This record gives sequence, C-alpha cells and structure tokens, in this order.
Amino acid sequence: MSPDTRASRPFNRHYLDHASTSLLRPEAALAMRSWLEEARSGDPARVHAEGRVVRDAIEQARDAVASLLKTTANRVVFTSGGTEAANAAIFAAGAARPGAPMICADVEHSCVREAAERAGTVETLRVDQYGRVDIDHLAFLLASPDRSWALVNCQWANHEVATLQPVAEVVALCRSSGVPVHLDGSAVIGHLPVRLDELGADLVSLSAHKFGGPPGIGALVVRRGVRLEPFVRGGAQERARRGGFENVIGIVGFGAAAEALAEPGRLGEECSTALGLSESLLKAATSVESVVPLGDIVRRVPHIVNVAVGGVLAEAVLLGLDRSGIAAHSGSACSSESIESSPVLTAMGVDPDRSLRLSVGWSSSQSDVDAFADTFGPVVESLRALGGQSA
Amino acid sequence: MSPDTRASRPFNRHYLDHASTSLLRPEAALAMRSWLEEARSGDPARVHAEGRVVRDAIEQARDAVASLLKTTANRVVFTSGGTEAANAAIFAAGAARPGAPMICADVEHSCVREAAERAGTVETLRVDQYGRVDIDHLAFLLASPDRSWALVNCQWANHEVATLQPVAEVVALCRSSGVPVHLDGSAVIGHLPVRLDELGADLVSLSAHKFGGPPGIGALVVRRGVRLEPFVRGGAQERARRGGFENVIGIVGFGAAAEALAEPGRLGEECSTALGLSESLLKAATSVESVVPLGDIVRRVPHIVNVAVGGVLAEAVLLGLDRSGIAAHSGSACSSESIESSPVLTAMGVDPDRSLRLSVGWSSSQSDVDAFADTFGPVVESLRALGGQSA
Repeated sequence: MSPDTRASRPFNRHYLDHASTSLLRPEAALAMRSWLEEARSGDPARVHAEGRVVRDAIEQARDAVASLLKTTANRVVFTSGGTEAANAAIFAAGAARPGAPMICADVEHSCVREAAERAGTVETLRVDQYGRVDIDHLAFLLASPDRSWALVNCQWANHEVATLQPVAEVVALCRSSGVPVHLDGSAVIGHLPVRLDELGADLVSLSAHKFGGPPGIGALVVRRGVRLEPFVRGGAQERARRGGFENVIGIVGFGAAAEALAEPGRLGEECSTALGLSESLLKAATSVESVVPLGDIVRRVPHIVNVAVGGVLAEAVLLGLDRSGIAAHSGSACSSESIESSPVLTAMGVDPDRSLRLSVGWSSSQSDVDAFADTFGPVVESLRALGGQSA
Repeated sequence: MSPDTRASRPFNRHYLDHASTSLLRPEAALAMRSWLEEARSGDPARVHAEGRVVRDAIEQARDAVASLLKTTANRVVFTSGGTEAANAAIFAAGAARPGAPMICADVEHSCVREAAERAGTVETLRVDQYGRVDIDHLAFLLASPDRSWALVNCQWANHEVATLQPVAEVVALCRSSGVPVHLDGSAVIGHLPVRLDELGADLVSLSAHKFGGPPGIGALVVRRGVRLEPFVRGGAQERARRGGFENVIGIVGFGAAAEALAEPGRLGEECSTALGLSESLLKAATSVESVVPLGDIVRRVPHIVNVAVGGVLAEAVLLGLDRSGIAAHSGSACSSESIESSPVLTAMGVDPDRSLRLSVGWSSSQSDVDAFADTFGPVVESLRALGGQSA
C-alpha cells in the first residue's frame, strides 16, 4: 500500500506542530473510512453477529497496538486518550494506597500534575536546566524510611523541550523500592522504538493522535499482575478495567496507525528523517540572532526542538509564521486556550513567552524546513523592528 | 439529502438491539467520511490555521447538539460517552459537597450506581414493579432535616424495561430543596423530544451512539451557573470542564446525527414509527405462551420493550434468534461481558435470566418485526421441547 500522503496536507501549508497533534496517517484514515463505508455497528459485549464483528475489530486493533509497543494485547486498555490514561493510572495507584503521597516533577504534562495533585500529597521531583529529572533525588526520596509512596510519575520525554528522561533507571529504582511507576509515554510512543514488557513499568499512558492515529483514543498499558481499579466506572468493558462503550472507530484508526508503524524498518526510517529535519530546523532557528536552544538537544525525542527567541513575544512570531503558511507552537499562554503560560518551561527556569516549539512527523519533508528557514528570520526581524512587540 | 439507509444493514439481518447501540446514521457516517477525506488535523487550542478549522468544526457540532437538546451551546461539554458523562456529573457533585450522601435507585445504569457508590454514601431510592422511582420517597428523603445531599441521580428512562421516570417532578422537587440533580438521558435523548433549558436539571448525561451517532462520544449538559469540577484533568479543553484532546471525528459525527434528527418533523416521525414497531414486537412476543411484558408498557420510551420468557433461558433464545438473523438482548449475565445478571431487573423483582429486550431505531421497519414474529415462537417452542434448556 502506498497511500497518497499529499491528501493529508490540504492547505498547502507547512505543518510544524506534530507534537500538539500529528496529522492523521493515510493508513488510519483509510481504515476508518472503510469501516464507515461498511457501516458496521454493534455492541461488542453482545452475543449477536453484529457484536462479534465489532469485537473482532477491537481485538485486531489491540493486537496491532500491542505489537508496536512490544507487549501483550491483554495488557492494553483503550482509553479516550493520553489524558484519560494518565488520570486512570494515577487514580488507580491512589486507590491502591489511599493517603500515600506521589512523586511528580513540575515538568510533567498538566494531566499528570493535576491528577496527582487531586490524588493527594505530591512531592516534587527536582529537574535540571534541560527539564531532566534528578535520579539521585528520586533515589533519596524512595529511600526515605518514613514514607510509603503510592506512585512515581515520570514522563518518558518532555512534550515541550523534547528532553528524554532516564526512564530505565527510574523504573529500576522504583521496582527495587517496591513503588509503582507510571510513565507518560505520549511524547515517545510512535516516535522511538519501545519495548514495554522489557522496560517493566507498572503503567504506561499513551495517545494515538500524537503519532498519526485519530484524536480521542489512547491506551493505558498495565503490567502483568497489576490490578487496575477503573477510573471510568460502569460496565465490564476492557476486561473490567474501563467502563463505557468503546470508541470503535477511533480504535480501528489507532490499530491501523500502529500496524503501519510496526512494518519492518518504518519507525526507524521515520525516526531518522525526523532527527535530520529537526536538526535542520534548530540550525535555521538558531542562525537568527538571539535565538537559543531549549532543552537537551542531544538526548531528546527526534521530532521536537524548542528555542527561546530574544526580544519578541512568541505569540507574534507564531502569528507571523501562520500568515506565511507555517504552523508551530509556543509555551506562551496566548498560544493556546490555557490561561497560564507553560508551567513546564517555568519549572526549567525558561520564559514561556519567548519559547517556540517546532515539531515534525510522518508527513514532514525538507520543503517544510526550507519554508521555515526562509520565513523565520524575516518574521523575527520585522517584529524586532516594531519596538512595540518587544517586552 | 437522502442517504442510502440500506448501506447500514450489510448483514441482511434484523437488528433489534438499538438500545445497546443504534446503527450509525448515514448522515453521521457521511460527515465523518468527508472529514476523513478532507484530512483535517490540527489542535483546536492552537492559533494556527489548521487548529482554527478543527475548532470551527467542533463548535458547529456543539451548536447542532445544543439545538437538538434545546439548550445553549456553551452548556454542552463533550465527553467520551454517556458513561464518562455520568461519572463526571457524579464526581463534580461529590467534589462540591464532600462527604454528603447521594440518592440513587437500584434501577440506574451501572455507570451511575458505581460512580455514586465510589463518591460516598448512597441512599437507595425506592422503585415500583415497573422500575419507576417513588416520588413520595424522594420527597421524604429530601425533607429529612438532618441530611444535606450532594446529588440526586435519576435516569430519564430505564434502559432495560423502557419505563419513563417522572423527571419533571424529580427536578422540581430537587430544585425546591436546593439539591443538585443529575439525569441520565442516554435512553431518551434522540428518541423523544427534550427541552433541557426548560426542564432545568443541573446535569444531564447522554450518549451519541444510542441514537445513531458514533460510539465513543457523548456529552454532559451543565445548567447555567453550575460549576463543574473536571473529572478528566489536564488541559483547558471544553472551557476547562474536561481535559484531553477532543475526539474530533466523533464530535463531527455526533453533530451530524443531531443535525439530522433536529430537522423539522424528523424526531416525531421516528418516534411514532418506533412506537408502532415496538408495540407490534410486544404483541408478537406475548402471543407466545408464558411470555409477559416487563416494565411499564404505556409510559415508556418508544423504542424499547422487554418481556419475561417463561421456561427457557434468555441466553438460548438470543442464540436461536441470532442464528435466524435477529439481534436482540437480555439482562442475563451470559448475554454480555458482565459477570453478573442485570441488577436493574433484580431490583424490580424480575429474573434477569428470563428477560428479552427488543429495541428498534431509525433503521427499523416492519420487515424486522415480521422476521421476529415468524421466528420467536418456534425458537422458544423448540427450546421448551428440549427439557435441558429449562431451569
């Protein structure tokens, strides 16, 4: 199959915001369109033929997702996305050890931080200037004799500045301390090869749309032997680990995206292309005066780079880029629905209103980089020339 | 637009399980296919062109849903389905009055009962033999001077036996007592006309797939002035009332289904057809010896009827019907993933293992009724002839 990838770029634009959401992969779109054309509907929990067809489709998708993640299908619990998966992981860990505190760094995604704060006391794990968690601090906290922890939360990579976390060390420390660990895998899954069963984390949350699956679907991967008290209650779906009628169309698309990416060589190739393109973007960005990289530019996920742009507000840069056909993102409050600037960047000691995040994905090409390289300098310079845009 | 409805019945079957999930309406399928063909992806929270297109689509769908429900768009919070919506309603009410008990009848859907039990103490509201809540008992509970209630939960209609609840009286009683009320509207919305703003319930949960929208999407309608503490945390989506990236494709389908149904005369016509077909089903079923109606056969939703079948296990009847091309459902444990028989039927004093639920929807016709009428009697009689199938 060689789907027409141009079909996914209808605007003739340069999309450099794959980290907010990637574009839907043609394989996923095709699978969902076929499903809709065949007009299959039925409750997979029922004993009738209509239900069995739907159940088979769900289980086929679960197999594909498990295969991409190098885990077993029955450990994959479908959720409405990475956010619900993280909420579910944290809720279940809190329910298993009521009143026990959790460990969480300030660089975690808001869904992790907020869910952990709701669950009870949160101990803040220290991070360095790249946003990387301090493994010695984690060891110190876990060794504390007077505290019993409910959960350690650790992102696999930072969604804003791309820094990879030392998750293997984090998991090993937690396992040896007998403390459950939840990894937020949304910035990594589909962008780097993973082997979840080998890694051995208790709970891994992920999102399909971050790597070209449909929005509104994700998964929580639960280690063998870990009991998951359901967050969404009511119904025995997902082996009684998540109530509610399944998002069948989303699951079909998620499975197709995972299957496409699990083809031999595909993920490695995309990963290498993304690394090359993002390095070129970083080079183009930092060739402009007073633009410096944020996060760890070496040990990072391949598809994200982030820079601080001196003397102009990132919001104005984003609008200038958008008018020139380029979509990007910033940690600035004005660049999203959120009313506050990125607490992640603030935790790293960075001014969110100066940050510009560029992220590539399966559909990205050199032409996107070239368009950015041609546009970014002039946009920044014209804004700097207007004194009013500087702070 | 005159979509080919036959396209949604690929099996050449007779689908009498619309109450588990309706078939996807052609208008919803078409809207989702068009969306997928146009390959629109983007984060609606972003300032770029891709994001704005997605945001517009979401808000257009929200308008359509609000219009069907006779409410204002900003009161509609999209969720991953009716189950999450009910969980969210109950969580928020519990968070607003920590420690206060809730009122809930045993005939509520498991998502309501289980979420209420998790939230704290539950006082059981009495029901009659039709599963209808005892309004005097509710008045008695609300008048109790030594108790402050967090929430009254009331289904709009029972999903198994179709009995309509006196929701206007329930809402009026709750409002005059100053106690918030949550209506589970999943068995009613899309099957009977509703006017949510007039009704004035604080919280109404609903599901799209129950009336021909896609699975995996629903809504919680929040009365003006009611603050909703988010159940799924992380992100300012849905005006900070539900975190997580939006199920855009599901929302597009939900909007299209709502829009189709809001066409003048459409809902009334479907309602009247459903009533006629379900009455014929009931007549055909009860013409067989020892088959009696369950629930209130007069004050009921138009699309559901339920019968008790004497002398045979419903599971065997379902399998016999399925082999003859007819999909139906039962409250029997064996007919679903659930490990227990329907607690709803048990609460009404009915044996779930004898129940057979028949439900029609937008795609149903007289031929479905005829097929059932031809098949049901012989299936039951052949099972009764086999002594082993009786209990």
